[in-house]
Amino acid sequence: MTHVREEILGMAGYTPGEQPQAGKFIKLNTNENPYPPSAQVTQAIRRALDSGLARYPDPLCDSFRHRAAEVLGVDPDWILCGNGSDDILTIVTRAFVAPGKKLRLPFPSYTLYHTLAQLQGAVSEAIPFRDNWSLDEKFHSHTHDLQLAFLPNPNSPSGTLLSPEEIRNVLEQLPCPLLIDEAYVDFATTDCLALVRENERLMISRTLSKSYALAGLRFGFLIAQPQVIRQLLKVKDSYNCDTLSIAGATAAIDDQRWLAENRAKVLATRERLTKALSELGFSALPSQANFVWSPHSGRPVQPLYEQLKSNRILVRYMKYEGWQDGLRISVGTDEQIDACLTLLKSMV
Amino acid sequence: MTHVREEILGMAGYTPGEQPQAGKFIKLNTNENPYPPSAQVTQAIRRALDSGLARYPDPLCDSFRHRAAEVLGVDPDWILCGNGSDDILTIVTRAFVAPGKKLRLPFPSYTLYHTLAQLQGAVSEAIPFRDNWSLDEKFHSHTHDLQLAFLPNPNSPSGTLLSPEEIRNVLEQLPCPLLIDEAYVDFATTDCLALVRENERLMISRTLSKSYALAGLRFGFLIAQPQVIRQLLKVKDSYNCDTLSIAGATAAIDDQRWLAENRAKVLATRERLTKALSELGFSALPSQANFVWSPHSGRPVQPLYEQLKSNRILVRYMKYEGWQDGLRISVGTDEQIDACLTLLKSMV
Repeated sequence: MTHVREEILGMAGYTPGEQPQAGKFIKLNTNENPYPPSAQVTQAIRRALDSGLARYPDPLCDSFRHRAAEVLGVDPDWILCGNGSDDILTIVTRAFVAPGKKLRLPFPSYTLYHTLAQLQGAVSEAIPFRDNWSLDEKFHSHTHDLQLAFLPNPNSPSGTLLSPEEIRNVLEQLPCPLLIDEAYVDFATTDCLALVRENERLMISRTLSKSYALAGLRFGFLIAQPQVIRQLLKVKDSYNCDTLSIAGATAAIDDQRWLAENRAKVLATRERLTKALSELGFSALPSQANFVWSPHSGRPVQPLYEQLKSNRILVRYMKYEGWQDGLRISVGTDEQIDACLTLLKSMV
Repeated sequence: MTHVREEILGMAGYTPGEQPQAGKFIKLNTNENPYPPSAQVTQAIRRALDSGLARYPDPLCDSFRHRAAEVLGVDPDWILCGNGSDDILTIVTRAFVAPGKKLRLPFPSYTLYHTLAQLQGAVSEAIPFRDNWSLDEKFHSHTHDLQLAFLPNPNSPSGTLLSPEEIRNVLEQLPCPLLIDEAYVDFATTDCLALVRENERLMISRTLSKSYALAGLRFGFLIAQPQVIRQLLKVKDSYNCDTLSIAGATAAIDDQRWLAENRAKVLATRERLTKALSELGFSALPSQANFVWSPHSGRPVQPLYEQLKSNRILVRYMKYEGWQDGLRISVGTDEQIDACLTLLKSMV
């Protein structure tokens, strides 16, 4: 196909984690929540379905914006809704990064950031984390043509968290806008919401996929100052969220009690998982997310991934150039994690 | 907000038709289907909801691709699914049009095409239709830097249709890929599906919003040769369609009997509407879509739009530079159209 842009022809494309559509797997590879979402979500979607699908949805998702605003303590016009937080990251990239210019990201982190830069014809500038997953000071250095920086916090695959104070320090020195990707923040001890008020260059993206158990619904959002949101609204598709997902997302964020209970369960299992992995010789990092990053100094881990898969347990095998490879294991139910640990014990 | 790209700061943004979220309107302004979707759709969505939302959806929407492929007589890998056909148009623009290059479109037509060019930092090259809405030969002329052409067929606001033979002729002479936007084609007498087999430069976009009565679901798709689809898959968000919309869309395209019955009802009402508007002095064009384009030589039509709106009937008032303004009236139920016509009669 000769007419496709060179940038697209030359790129491999982002590869999402395996999503087997058939067969029964214990899925611990894409950080989905192992529990069903709040019952309020299902009820709200049923009601919306009964009200009909023939009409276009609300382009601004105002029902969600109003309820989320109350929960977060901001005004509704500080919120932009998206078809998953991937949609939000695409919108922000297109709004801030011109072709040929630079998008900064830490490494290793979410590999989609690099793909987004490629799609935009921009240059991604990867700044390696230090060995202990702290942020190198190069991350806030001035570079020619730097237009945007992405920083996931908690990070994946490490599950590590930078404090709001560290992020404030980065932001003050950074010459461009900074998007903090808080996809996993509901499992962490701090967040950066307060920083959005202080600086229009700070944006926060969140998703309902992980902590609200709604990966199938595709709903994410951005929190930023209203003059930023107004510009980003021009970039999004008019009707980027559908009637059912708006209804479900509104009900989800309304049920903060469900969130607290779910979080407590996930955190309890996470602690068990981390401890057990350490006992098996993994260098399992203390995690602030719903997964545990598990390199192993004593043996190669790719065969473990393969053996688990052949036993219908999917974890994520990850190899980043210059870094020790490892397994990223999502926090499942206690039963799922026990099944995974039992198998691992028989292998290591 | 000084860091936003100049192209974005300088643009007005696409304005969708009014979607009043409160109050009861007869909505004849955004070409929604006035009837509820197939009962199969609702059932399929309920089943998907019962199966859960915590898992990511199928990135390729294979259930839809397989069923649509059977209905259309192509292979599944000729189909790309999108979050509405706006998503499809965005993906195609990003794949083919480099910043600074040209995107061709007819005028007047769907104003989003121009917005998509702006967002890409590209130049939109509008080729005016001839007075009788036939395509000017300039549309297939060679221009420096031309990388893609959009051609809606049937067109909006005119509701007019170009024959497959005319489109083949355009395609043969055009130096770039051509996307035929068939959003309204299920209400027309011909389509361009056969041309996709003949030429990899031809792509067809379709939507379930209009003819399947699913504007609230956000589901569209592209039909093109597999080597084209493979490139476009790199550009889309991994999970651009959600679990419920995939289930609903698959059920919708499966129910071709519903489509045929709905089409017959819409076409019957369209004929009544066109005739009645002509009798009221409108130059109502024979339409191949689910709306009727209605300029009026005898009097200004904007006040009619305003008066209808104050009576809680929404139609679309459209004014394109250099063209006579008009009302674009969606085909509603007979009852809705009667209410609209009764009011119009009292005004003109």
